[in-house]
Amino acid sequence: MNFDGEQKQRVSTIEDIIKKFIPPIEGYQKTVIEAMNYSLMAGGKRLRPMLMEETFRLFGGSNWAVLEPFLAAIEMIHTYSLVHDDLPAMDDDEYRRGRKTTHIVYGEAMAILAGDGLLNYAFETAVKAFKMIGSEQANEELADYKRVARAIDILSMKSGIYGMLGGQVVDVEEYNGYIDRKRLDFIYQLKTGALIEAAMMIGAILAGATDEELDTIEEIAGDVGLAFQIKDDILDVTSSAEVLGKPIHSDEKNEKTTYVTLMDVDNADDEVVRISERAIKAYEALPYKNEYLKILINKLITREY
Amino acid sequence: MNFDGEQKQRVSTIEDIIKKFIPPIEGYQKTVIEAMNYSLMAGGKRLRPMLMEETFRLFGGSNWAVLEPFLAAIEMIHTYSLVHDDLPAMDDDEYRRGRKTTHIVYGEAMAILAGDGLLNYAFETAVKAFKMIGSEQANEELADYKRVARAIDILSMKSGIYGMLGGQVVDVEEYNGYIDRKRLDFIYQLKTGALIEAAMMIGAILAGATDEELDTIEEIAGDVGLAFQIKDDILDVTSSAEVLGKPIHSDEKNEKTTYVTLMDVDNADDEVVRISERAIKAYEALPYKNEYLKILINKLITREY
Repeated sequence: MNFDGEQKQRVSTIEDIIKKFIPPIEGYQKTVIEAMNYSLMAGGKRLRPMLMEETFRLFGGSNWAVLEPFLAAIEMIHTYSLVHDDLPAMDDDEYRRGRKTTHIVYGEAMAILAGDGLLNYAFETAVKAFKMIGSEQANEELADYKRVARAIDILSMKSGIYGMLGGQVVDVEEYNGYIDRKRLDFIYQLKTGALIEAAMMIGAILAGATDEELDTIEEIAGDVGLAFQIKDDILDVTSSAEVLGKPIHSDEKNEKTTYVTLMDVDNADDEVVRISERAIKAYEALPYKNEYLKILINKLITREY
Repeated sequence: MNFDGEQKQRVSTIEDIIKKFIPPIEGYQKTVIEAMNYSLMAGGKRLRPMLMEETFRLFGGSNWAVLEPFLAAIEMIHTYSLVHDDLPAMDDDEYRRGRKTTHIVYGEAMAILAGDGLLNYAFETAVKAFKMIGSEQANEELADYKRVARAIDILSMKSGIYGMLGGQVVDVEEYNGYIDRKRLDFIYQLKTGALIEAAMMIGAILAGATDEELDTIEEIAGDVGLAFQIKDDILDVTSSAEVLGKPIHSDEKNEKTTYVTLMDVDNADDEVVRISERAIKAYEALPYKNEYLKILINKLITREY
């Protein structure tokens, strides 16, 4: 398998699905829809929907119509968090992935509303999955309803104060202050990990995974998120702006505590290896295989950009 | 019935229900939970949950445990919209109902996050209704699942870009500009009306109203919202700061187009009467009665504060 070619093609398929769920740019409120579209279509790895899709595939999921709204919804939630993180009151960033940030293009008020709009629309979109349930027998239909309800439960929990948003809150509060490893892990597990957990767990649930399998997936996803974030800390020190597509040494400039400041690059590297090996081991113990997912997880952790 | 005493007692009951769903103020992320709690417990008429509850009662709803999460959720959405509306980039308000606004107390970044947290938590809370479904027969259980799913669908739709948020977007964009009546109605119907529609429709759905009844409730609620908002325009000109509990002539100061600037106070008053009579007439045509709801609707429209 040519992984890079395959990945490119899958990103394109995911973007087509996301586009299907974007509201048409029309009506009196079209500016906010335009701003939502601008931020949602700004590129990126589409990592969360891709992990969701591959976990769905791992567990032999078949009703793709029920999955699709969630693929779009999780990317909307990820995108809203970026739009609000970039705001002047937060990180005050003018560029992201080489493009002007939403508040630079549309103004601060509209960027706040576009972020709100994306978060809200993520749930509007996820709820559409109920309409895609096609079972004809009441018992099966009920089982499908329960799965979709649980998927929305996980999506909302992992994005909120006990998930991504909770991590962001602690990150904002501690900016420029000293953070110990316990607190840093809390930030990473929530800010980065929680949405990756949601992605993989929703893929598993909608494919019919058992509760036990779901626990395993949550652990794997948590490790992937943590290793991914530590790798981010390392690349900020060891990579170059050209390769990374964004300024390096930004953590040092912002006086941020990272795994690199807590334990130096070599030890941080060892942590990445330790955590990712644990994730791969748990994955190997599952009775299902998805070679693409395994390579994807490995690439996330060993990536150079 | 002593309406005012009854209303006071019902507000208190609703606040007890909301409190049940507020997350405990603890953990690394407790500041945001504190800020969410601060804004959510700032008082107010609790109009939306009250309309939801009374509509549920009108249609003879019985499973209160399924309704309760929605009572809390809609107030969380209303509150998040106030927190974000008050932000410096939006209306830049320092006080609301005599208390300092969230961003004044907790800072701008935390206020953005508290608003996000409330919006997200509203959906986390609404999803809890699935767990309150108690039917034992698969067919009945499925019917209950479908009702809750539809209620979440309506909640999300009426709060987003095709509801409350859409109205807010147009309101922000047109600030200081000329607005014709069609556009003003759009703003009012969405910014104020949509959430009142959601409140009454969710009460109706969870009580088992038919599709036809639901359409009627949507129309009544739309009229109530519109009349309520026009009344707001009038009171801003005819009332006093003491009675209203907030500065008057704020619309004039902000050069806002309102029903009063479009058509003067007397004609705006006539509009309120015309729209509210239409709502009451539609209500009277329903084969159910809830005297408290009828008085409540009348009071909203004829209120002096």
